[in-house]
Amino acid sequence: MATIIDGRKLAKKINDETAKQVTKLKSENVFPCLAVILVGDDQASHRYVRSKHRKAEQLGIKSIVKEMPENTTQEDLMQVLNEYNNDDDIHAILIQSPLPKQIDEKFIMKQINPKKDVDGFQTINAGNLFLNESTNYPVACTPNGVMQMFKEYNVALEGKKAVVIGRSTIVGRPMAALLINAGAEVTVLNHFAEVSQYTKDADIIVSATGKLHTLRAADVKAGATVIDVGQNVDENGKLVGDVDFDEVAKVAGNITPVPGGVGPMTICMLMKQTVQLAKWSDKRNG
Amino acid sequence: MATIIDGRKLAKKINDETAKQVTKLKSENVFPCLAVILVGDDQASHRYVRSKHRKAEQLGIKSIVKEMPENTTQEDLMQVLNEYNNDDDIHAILIQSPLPKQIDEKFIMKQINPKKDVDGFQTINAGNLFLNESTNYPVACTPNGVMQMFKEYNVALEGKKAVVIGRSTIVGRPMAALLINAGAEVTVLNHFAEVSQYTKDADIIVSATGKLHTLRAADVKAGATVIDVGQNVDENGKLVGDVDFDEVAKVAGNITPVPGGVGPMTICMLMKQTVQLAKWSDKRNG
Repeated sequence: MATIIDGRKLAKKINDETAKQVTKLKSENVFPCLAVILVGDDQASHRYVRSKHRKAEQLGIKSIVKEMPENTTQEDLMQVLNEYNNDDDIHAILIQSPLPKQIDEKFIMKQINPKKDVDGFQTINAGNLFLNESTNYPVACTPNGVMQMFKEYNVALEGKKAVVIGRSTIVGRPMAALLINAGAEVTVLNHFAEVSQYTKDADIIVSATGKLHTLRAADVKAGATVIDVGQNVDENGKLVGDVDFDEVAKVAGNITPVPGGVGPMTICMLMKQTVQLAKWSDKRNG
Repeated sequence: MATIIDGRKLAKKINDETAKQVTKLKSENVFPCLAVILVGDDQASHRYVRSKHRKAEQLGIKSIVKEMPENTTQEDLMQVLNEYNNDDDIHAILIQSPLPKQIDEKFIMKQINPKKDVDGFQTINAGNLFLNESTNYPVACTPNGVMQMFKEYNVALEGKKAVVIGRSTIVGRPMAALLINAGAEVTVLNHFAEVSQYTKDADIIVSATGKLHTLRAADVKAGATVIDVGQNVDENGKLVGDVDFDEVAKVAGNITPVPGGVGPMTICMLMKQTVQLAKWSDKRNG
């Protein structure tokens, strides 16, 4: 039976460390601050933003939530963003997706100051990761959280066979880059690939397909580490991952559940990265 | 017996097309211009730069070669680079590596205007490639040349198994990104991996290890396409690739020789990309 990788417990541990870092920074007169811009009435977005806000406050991070109406123009949004981009007291900026249709979301997202890009989505930061640069740069929170799981559960990466299923810019690609940079032998697959021919031999499998039954027990090598980034709703309305958890858990060495696995890591990494951006900014200013 | 992918012939074809593009651009009053900065006395560098200069002139591209002495300071080099970065008549800039040791090569390379980054090495351009952006950006010339080979020889990529051996920022990583973006199932390996376990099943293998005998016949599936980016000198002082050409050619479907394979593609892609940068620049200015 696999070890269950406990995302809630690890998130708590990382949050505790983040809170300590915040206290330390404050004693040095650096006040980590995250600004979230929320445009429109999307209820799920409001919920996500509230939970980010609460978590930031819990950890001592200053949290600004700028709510803007559904009919906000791109120019109005750009004005707020520019103000935040140039405000030295704001270290991290997040624009909650989705944006109303009158706004060119792809364009706007690219206008975030890369030094405040807490999501790690900016092209220059993706380039830093892809080229394995040694400078300080933010990294996409979800795959960065998965790296923390590997560390916490002593999952060796160097020279290991890793398979990443899904090639999105926010999970699959940065996950692959992180694993390549850590010395793994990495295969990147489309969600429609016949994954079992690759996963059967793999030491590490990360599934980010959003497809039920992406991985079954027969697709997984005994002892492999299985990370499930999927958040799907099954036929009974239950939140499940991409992986057939009960079956795969009998074969795998380590496995993340859904919920309680990768999910809790994303916000905790957002907070950790806000504090990192504050530190780096202080070094630049100091 | 494999089809031999003829890099010299393909380079000539691409150069002919580039020369036509240059003529067309000139008729529109755009004069494609490549500036190469060459610092110091390295004889191989002088040879490379001369051959780039000759090729540019042959194709009608204006070629500026700025030779600077071995004892050039970083400040002096930066001054020349800034001038070129800001000169609208210069579309493409290349700083020949290696640079003398008093110069921080990594730093200087990052100072090239990304819009004139004919090598495609700038972080923002690597990020564009990694994120598969749809905007115009330059791509590293050698892997981009390999993509031209796939096209010319009708090598299908979508859904195919591809293995890239070597993870350098100038060949392996951009090659992997190009293949991922083309829909292949891509594995990226260290040069010290046991490659045969991956290559035996692969439809496409790109070797960029700089190691003799990286691939032998037994490592290759019948009919596979084998691209050899290696440039090595064997025990007899002969220029050879990473692949045991004579043996592998009996098994593969397509194979590049060394010399005469990937080698000639790099300069031809440099010229093609100079012309593309000139076109894009014209659109921006116009």
